[in-house]
Amino acid sequence: MAIDRLNELDDFTVEVPSWAYGNAGTRFKVFRTEGVPRDPWEKIADAAQVNALTGAAPRVSLHIPWDRVDDFAGLAEYAAGLGVSIGGINSNLFQEDDYKLGSLTHVDTGIRARAIDHHLECIEIMRQTGSKDLKIWLPDGTNYAGQDSLARRQDRLADSLEQIYSALDPDHRLLLEYKFFEPYFYSMDVPDWGTSLLHCLALGRQAKVVLDTGHHAPGTNIEFIVVQLLRQGRLGAFDFNSRYYADDDLIVGSADPFQLFRILNEIVEAGAHRPESGVNFMLDQCHNIEEKIPGQIRSVLNVQQATAKALLVDRTALTEAQDCGDVLGAHQVLMDAFETDVREILSDRREQAGLPRDPVAEFAQSGYAERVAKERADGAQAGWGA
Amino acid sequence: MAIDRLNELDDFTVEVPSWAYGNAGTRFKVFRTEGVPRDPWEKIADAAQVNALTGAAPRVSLHIPWDRVDDFAGLAEYAAGLGVSIGGINSNLFQEDDYKLGSLTHVDTGIRARAIDHHLECIEIMRQTGSKDLKIWLPDGTNYAGQDSLARRQDRLADSLEQIYSALDPDHRLLLEYKFFEPYFYSMDVPDWGTSLLHCLALGRQAKVVLDTGHHAPGTNIEFIVVQLLRQGRLGAFDFNSRYYADDDLIVGSADPFQLFRILNEIVEAGAHRPESGVNFMLDQCHNIEEKIPGQIRSVLNVQQATAKALLVDRTALTEAQDCGDVLGAHQVLMDAFETDVREILSDRREQAGLPRDPVAEFAQSGYAERVAKERADGAQAGWGA
Amino acid sequence: MAIDRLNELDDFTVEVPSWAYGNAGTRFKVFRTEGVPRDPWEKIADAAQVNALTGAAPRVSLHIPWDRVDDFAGLAEYAAGLGVSIGGINSNLFQEDDYKLGSLTHVDTGIRARAIDHHLECIEIMRQTGSKDLKIWLPDGTNYAGQDSLARRQDRLADSLEQIYSALDPDHRLLLEYKFFEPYFYSMDVPDWGTSLLHCLALGRQAKVVLDTGHHAPGTNIEFIVVQLLRQGRLGAFDFNSRYYADDDLIVGSADPFQLFRILNEIVEAGAHRPESGVNFMLDQCHNIEEKIPGQIRSVLNVQQATAKALLVDRTALTEAQDCGDVLGAHQVLMDAFETDVREILSDRREQAGLPRDPVAEFAQSGYAERVAKERADGAQAGWGA
Amino acid sequence: MAIDRLNELDDFTVEVPSWAYGNAGTRFKVFRTEGVPRDPWEKIADAAQVNALTGAAPRVSLHIPWDRVDDFAGLAEYAAGLGVSIGGINSNLFQEDDYKLGSLTHVDTGIRARAIDHHLECIEIMRQTGSKDLKIWLPDGTNYAGQDSLARRQDRLADSLEQIYSALDPDHRLLLEYKFFEPYFYSMDVPDWGTSLLHCLALGRQAKVVLDTGHHAPGTNIEFIVVQLLRQGRLGAFDFNSRYYADDDLIVGSADPFQLFRILNEIVEAGAHRPESGVNFMLDQCHNIEEKIPGQIRSVLNVQQATAKALLVDRTALTEAQDCGDVLGAHQVLMDAFETDVREILSDRREQAGLPRDPVAEFAQSGYAERVAKERADGAQAGWGA
Repeated sequence: MAIDRLNELDDFTVEVPSWAYGNAGTRFKVFRTEGVPRDPWEKIADAAQVNALTGAAPRVSLHIPWDRVDDFAGLAEYAAGLGVSIGGINSNLFQEDDYKLGSLTHVDTGIRARAIDHHLECIEIMRQTGSKDLKIWLPDGTNYAGQDSLARRQDRLADSLEQIYSALDPDHRLLLEYKFFEPYFYSMDVPDWGTSLLHCLALGRQAKVVLDTGHHAPGTNIEFIVVQLLRQGRLGAFDFNSRYYADDDLIVGSADPFQLFRILNEIVEAGAHRPESGVNFMLDQCHNIEEKIPGQIRSVLNVQQATAKALLVDRTALTEAQDCGDVLGAHQVLMDAFETDVREILSDRREQAGLPRDPVAEFAQSGYAERVAKERADGAQAGWGA
Repeated sequence: MAIDRLNELDDFTVEVPSWAYGNAGTRFKVFRTEGVPRDPWEKIADAAQVNALTGAAPRVSLHIPWDRVDDFAGLAEYAAGLGVSIGGINSNLFQEDDYKLGSLTHVDTGIRARAIDHHLECIEIMRQTGSKDLKIWLPDGTNYAGQDSLARRQDRLADSLEQIYSALDPDHRLLLEYKFFEPYFYSMDVPDWGTSLLHCLALGRQAKVVLDTGHHAPGTNIEFIVVQLLRQGRLGAFDFNSRYYADDDLIVGSADPFQLFRILNEIVEAGAHRPESGVNFMLDQCHNIEEKIPGQIRSVLNVQQATAKALLVDRTALTEAQDCGDVLGAHQVLMDAFETDVREILSDRREQAGLPRDPVAEFAQSGYAERVAKERADGAQAGWGA
Repeated sequence: MAIDRLNELDDFTVEVPSWAYGNAGTRFKVFRTEGVPRDPWEKIADAAQVNALTGAAPRVSLHIPWDRVDDFAGLAEYAAGLGVSIGGINSNLFQEDDYKLGSLTHVDTGIRARAIDHHLECIEIMRQTGSKDLKIWLPDGTNYAGQDSLARRQDRLADSLEQIYSALDPDHRLLLEYKFFEPYFYSMDVPDWGTSLLHCLALGRQAKVVLDTGHHAPGTNIEFIVVQLLRQGRLGAFDFNSRYYADDDLIVGSADPFQLFRILNEIVEAGAHRPESGVNFMLDQCHNIEEKIPGQIRSVLNVQQATAKALLVDRTALTEAQDCGDVLGAHQVLMDAFETDVREILSDRREQAGLPRDPVAEFAQSGYAERVAKERADGAQAGWGA
Repeated sequence: MAIDRLNELDDFTVEVPSWAYGNAGTRFKVFRTEGVPRDPWEKIADAAQVNALTGAAPRVSLHIPWDRVDDFAGLAEYAAGLGVSIGGINSNLFQEDDYKLGSLTHVDTGIRARAIDHHLECIEIMRQTGSKDLKIWLPDGTNYAGQDSLARRQDRLADSLEQIYSALDPDHRLLLEYKFFEPYFYSMDVPDWGTSLLHCLALGRQAKVVLDTGHHAPGTNIEFIVVQLLRQGRLGAFDFNSRYYADDDLIVGSADPFQLFRILNEIVEAGAHRPESGVNFMLDQCHNIEEKIPGQIRSVLNVQQATAKALLVDRTALTEAQDCGDVLGAHQVLMDAFETDVREILSDRREQAGLPRDPVAEFAQSGYAERVAKERADGAQAGWGA
């Protein structure tokens, strides 16, 4: 057991999404929760709670237009005052009526130009907030075979991405996410890691792939994709969440904690948990029925816990067993780390860092939830506006 | 080829859902379409168009509360005046904030009582509209392992259903639908046909199972389930639609026309296409991006087309080949019917019945869409209100 | 934490399959391993090792004809001498050329009679060996739509099962297993728990369902099925193994240990881990590439470990959190048990019982493997004979 | 309808695999069939029947070592005498005991060298038979997390492939196939098109990807992958077959004929059905329970039928409808071609070419099956030797 490697957790952080603090739901219903933020400032305040209690979530992703404010520099300052910074800027290509049949892939040049312009706005927001990551999830796709030309949509997408990429500053990154299905059901224009990677390779070194753990076909070996993207130097970021079926967007680690461990095991194996790797570990979740801030705290802790176990893997023993073909022995080395209960060790580490041993319990006792429920009783709760 | 069996199509009809004429979408966006109905009366007017042009869609399902009106008898009369009748009454258990953690399965007796009462209202609407089918899709479920007791939820569900069932008139049916996942992602309380059937068996002969073609795990052999439910005398209705991945709710027959044919082949094999079988062939679809009335017309035609092909199967040859173990020969008998182009024959039949040969083209030329787009320019379009 | 409940492990045992000690593989290749048994006697000797080292595997399932011997009573005595008894008798319906198109469902009465007779032989073997469980996995199915009548195959199956059932002794059970697909790919005649249960209900109280954890569609919530079958009093046995994709037959607990825990959590919740529940916890696995005896030891330990964690669940806290709708709290109660490292406690328990703390290491040091490799160098290794 | 485009079928051919004429099965059983070939000569004789009757299957793939003969030049001459030529040479990396833990990815240099040498032998056979395609399906993978290093296996694979590639003649191609799972169940070393493409890009222009229609996750949009690979100029070949669940290897077009049509629609859209495209349309199937030669004839006809329908798509109307966003209209253009019954037209075309109108019926009447059943009564039937 490599207990001393747990110090590598010092620099391992998770980025939280502003939208996780707003309302979310399914196509059937978005349930309301008391105390939900009404604007980006309140979302950041909530996110700052997660960082204050865990010490491991110092960045907040924004989503444009949901988080559009008049004064982005002011928002970044406000965040800094609360101990967090602005992380990736996420564009939105799925909520304009014009985008019904496509955005960056639309056959109409005018609509495509509009979608491209939206990214220029996002890049400008990056400059104002100090963000370095432009995150693009392309929701485009079709619902019926024949509805549009799969090939021409790729051409249009390549052209649109090229225009966006050329507007980046040298220290910016373009992060391109893929998704198996939803919100379209016959074809998606970036359905898999292969497609995302090909577009990134065509664009240049500042383009990287985003792996959302909920965006794959049933049975897909996600850690294999992690390995491939790391091999190509193109793993830009994770969007962590859990799924049983589709893109369920549940709390990361709640559905298959062993899979989360296997993913982080490959990350640690490659040293990609270190900040210099450039891999951004983000959450992307929907707390449809549970409380949002505790849901986020739990998520950060789950990622940390899985990373701790990955750091505990006895890599010398693992390699030795692998290299002599000891199938059960090598597997057992991995399982031994997974079976280890790291909760107390991590609580100790938090205590030593001046953080609460149990961040979830601490939040519950803090009175924060009750206070904001009262303060935010009026006005419209933030949500997706779907 | 059993061409003369096509006369059996005379009595084969499809029930259309009122909500297919309103707006629908994904959790990401509900796109607006021009001319969408603003109330149940307009939905029925649109549905009546589908029947007028196809001659095969004489019933309209209602959804409560979406289709709540002051005068249900008046609504039924209005429908009759347009040549259609009111079909199944669909309850809604997924849009009250109270139902966040369950409706008929909720731990709180008060909330359960409320959900049960809603069905008493639906039964009263059945009496006023002449509907005979109470259709229950139970959206209840959980998102996290441990969140609730799977076993106690079954007990509560059984009790709730019993209370609803006991309020039915002798000529009413309770139709219980199952669904694999969504809107909950860890467990659903009626996830599969087995669970639905067990509840129906416990309730009594008036309880039947609804098979929604989009509500199964990947790879499920749906026609096998059709056979099993027919064997038990418990197939109450279909909810037809198409899927590639999840409950995509696309136009029936658009994703896997051979599967639709196989399903209808089992129906015809068992004689269950005949009205006396009591199987209600309903559509349940979302026209997220396509025009809604033409989408419904196409759906009705697709079901009709698949049924026609199923009627064309040479059943003597099929049984003969099956009984002598001629694998390829038996398969070929089926494929020969599937490969047959029935479009012209069905156009001829329509023409003979005084209907347009091409209902989709006829609708496009009718000016109806343009007219309602103008008439319905003001006011709120109907939708799910999610 | 309910540490004292771990005493309930005293009576919790796992049944091992004789065939796990023979060779197995895929359709592409069956790899040979040194020291593999050549006959049922040697398989039982190997199985007895697993019990001797774990103290938790006192029964061995047989498979007929693979384990046919002249003297079954002698085999049972031999087993008893090694500290184990004969468990379930598994019939084989997939290896006769006659069964290419079906066995208990075959259209030919003669072939069906032969398949039924095979079970009469199995029942006779039960009498000679003291076994109480006749386990039937029906591999029958079709590869092409139309190949055979799905409905008539159900009729023939029902008739065949009835004939077998009527030959049982009063203290015998008929255990009917279901499987989603393989070895047939269009339809299986018992593809799901619903079908198996319907046949069992028709047969009578001695008929129960077998749940093989690898026999479901992707994404199926297996613990829900456990709950349903327990609710009906019809869960007869498990066939434990692991899968990522299909019926992979890997070591139980190796692919999704959290799922195994959730399954055993429902078992413990219902008290079905107790011997009087009549649920038989069996393994059914293929050690294609790993050593077989250590693979079986690891499997028994994995089931025990998951059961231990399930016993540790604080059920009072769980129910309380569930009943007040505390989604995250209830989930956390479950996760706390899952995260607990029970390896040392279980080693202590073994030590107190005079068993090795680490059965895998103990076996490695025992020299057994080397000894049998030498003794069994000649002759044909046992396998499936596919 | 573009009826005259059907002339493009003149040059559209399908390559058949020698192993389809031998026995195949599942891991549970390989059923025997009368008249199965005993050696490569007899397999080629059977394959020549398929070409003689369809006029569309002029090449036969070989599999080494299954088709190893002393005189490959003689075998090629024998084939030529029967009107067919030798197509791709398929290597075998899954049947040596040494390959249990890997072949081209094995940690042991000696075993890797052996696997590489096997391909040098295959290349030599290509020279002797006039074959231009070296087809590599890498069955390598692992069954347990941790068993081996996913990353190092990729490195070893890249090195092995490079050594094989450098031995190719300038007019040879290396075709690299990917597969989602089986015969390993935790990880495959080439599980998806992205991985295969990356290796091909690293190797050079003579390396292309093979798309086996049965080697994807459930729900995968295969025609999208076709489009992507064509875009990169790297689609080397198809392995056609059908699946409902896994790699079922059923007759192409028997499970989802609409999917087959959609795939060929993208092929025709890109002009890749023309010989100069270099895409090799191969079958790879297992006729486990049906007669093999008729199964192959049916498969060739099914591919031809789907291609004919794809040629019939009104591409002007399709593009027009797509470019003006007519979702239902564009879809309908595609469906109109799919719904067209092309069986008579294709029979007419065959008759004009001096071929039988109904090749399956012609084969049945020819007496060939009865004759070879008698001639081949003795000796060992060819199979996989698994």
